[in-house]
Amino acid sequence: MSDTPIVPDSGSLTPAQQARLDARAGRLTSITRGVAMGYMQAALVILPRAQALDFAVFCQRNQRACPVFEITDPGATEARRVAPGSDLRTDLPRYSVYRDGVREDVPDVTHLWRDDLMSFVIGSGITWDLALERAGVQTKKYRWVLNTALPTDPCGPFHGPVVVTMRLLTPAEAVIAIQLTSRFPFNHGAPIHIGDPREIGADLQCPIVGPPIDEFPRGLVPVLWACSVTPQAVAASAKVEFMMTSAPAYGFITDLETDKVCIP
Amino acid sequence: MSDTPIVPDSGSLTPAQQARLDARAGRLTSITRGVAMGYMQAALVILPRAQALDFAVFCQRNQRACPVFEITDPGATEARRVAPGSDLRTDLPRYSVYRDGVREDVPDVTHLWRDDLMSFVIGSGITWDLALERAGVQTKKYRWVLNTALPTDPCGPFHGPVVVTMRLLTPAEAVIAIQLTSRFPFNHGAPIHIGDPREIGADLQCPIVGPPIDEFPRGLVPVLWACSVTPQAVAASAKVEFMMTSAPAYGFITDLETDKVCIP
Repeated sequence: MSDTPIVPDSGSLTPAQQARLDARAGRLTSITRGVAMGYMQAALVILPRAQALDFAVFCQRNQRACPVFEITDPGATEARRVAPGSDLRTDLPRYSVYRDGVREDVPDVTHLWRDDLMSFVIGSGITWDLALERAGVQTKKYRWVLNTALPTDPCGPFHGPVVVTMRLLTPAEAVIAIQLTSRFPFNHGAPIHIGDPREIGADLQCPIVGPPIDEFPRGLVPVLWACSVTPQAVAASAKVEFMMTSAPAYGFITDLETDKVCIP
Repeated sequence: MSDTPIVPDSGSLTPAQQARLDARAGRLTSITRGVAMGYMQAALVILPRAQALDFAVFCQRNQRACPVFEITDPGATEARRVAPGSDLRTDLPRYSVYRDGVREDVPDVTHLWRDDLMSFVIGSGITWDLALERAGVQTKKYRWVLNTALPTDPCGPFHGPVVVTMRLLTPAEAVIAIQLTSRFPFNHGAPIHIGDPREIGADLQCPIVGPPIDEFPRGLVPVLWACSVTPQAVAASAKVEFMMTSAPAYGFITDLETDKVCIP
């Protein structure tokens, strides 16, 4: 009908749809931790079809760090499976563009889009926060993103270390966090390590996110999960001619709900 | 040392390694249900690199039916991640070879191997049987493989219906089976349907495996899981020029142990 409004009634939008629209309009420019809580967040890796098979195989070989929610057709600008109506060119607050491994961050990649680009939507650990908080596990402090000495299993140009997120939890919180994150096998699942992070070569002096660490507060246990910053780091190592990702800590917010145990 | 035996001491082989060796030597020619119980079994799809990206995306879009354990490099004959020392050309008792969608079954594909072939190792529900039996759920009778009216999400030439395995269980067994298979998200995970199979268009008159069904025994509940026969059926529909798969019910036996909750 001719009088059907073209702009959706904002009252009918879910928090996830609203957040994507806010990023598109430039109203959401912050990191996405805590935004649209209860919806699964994802990292994006966008690359030419010529590199897509190697990257798909890389993700399969490193499912813990790179669990794939969706792979789009070449040129597609919408994540039709996990975020119908989305625009992958605009719906993130910040993108990292890599040219031969050199990074530049931008708020929009519409001008860079090409018909041969395929988008990989990769589950992120930001997703668990609501589930953890509801279970009484604090999520606001003691969090880091760290490089480790664990290698990924390479494919083609894609290689580099596993990047982890580390949280410091009480022993009781650690047990609950292991139980809860096991329920999200497509968001990195259970931790890959608990206890001294130096055992997996975690770089405590130069964290990717968070302050340098000399010692841990008494009574708190380091718990470490594979992290979807791994594909970003791999993009930099691969030095592919052209590639774009979500900037670290800026997630793509999907319509998948964390209360539903689902295989994407 | 020169006196090191070249042939491994069979006493030191695991049941999985022994089963692969038996298939290679032509001693194992039966279906693999019940063989090397406790090791994860897989379906194989082997196709040229030119079709591999479309098939990788197809598997991602249909993770429930096509959960990928490993993707080999082009030409590789070993599943080095999930079955080191295996030979993908010989270690299955039976292969299905598809030429333009026409199927021929053979016991060995060494003579058909090419440098551009990539192998997809796809988790199979045969895997759960030990876990189910240990939990008191019967696994020997009331089992079918059925076509449904549920479409897969296509990619390139790959399309077709979701194929399911159906078991008839008591209500108490059904609850345990749902709990247990949820622990195997990379082996189809939880059921996709319980109750009347006609609700998802299951073809009870022409089962792929099992006798036609007119009515169900009183007191038993149909429980239906996505099945790794799906990629075999999709291969036939796609009518790609050349493709090979494991024959239905003939599994590739991996070194992954079902007692370990692991992401491959």
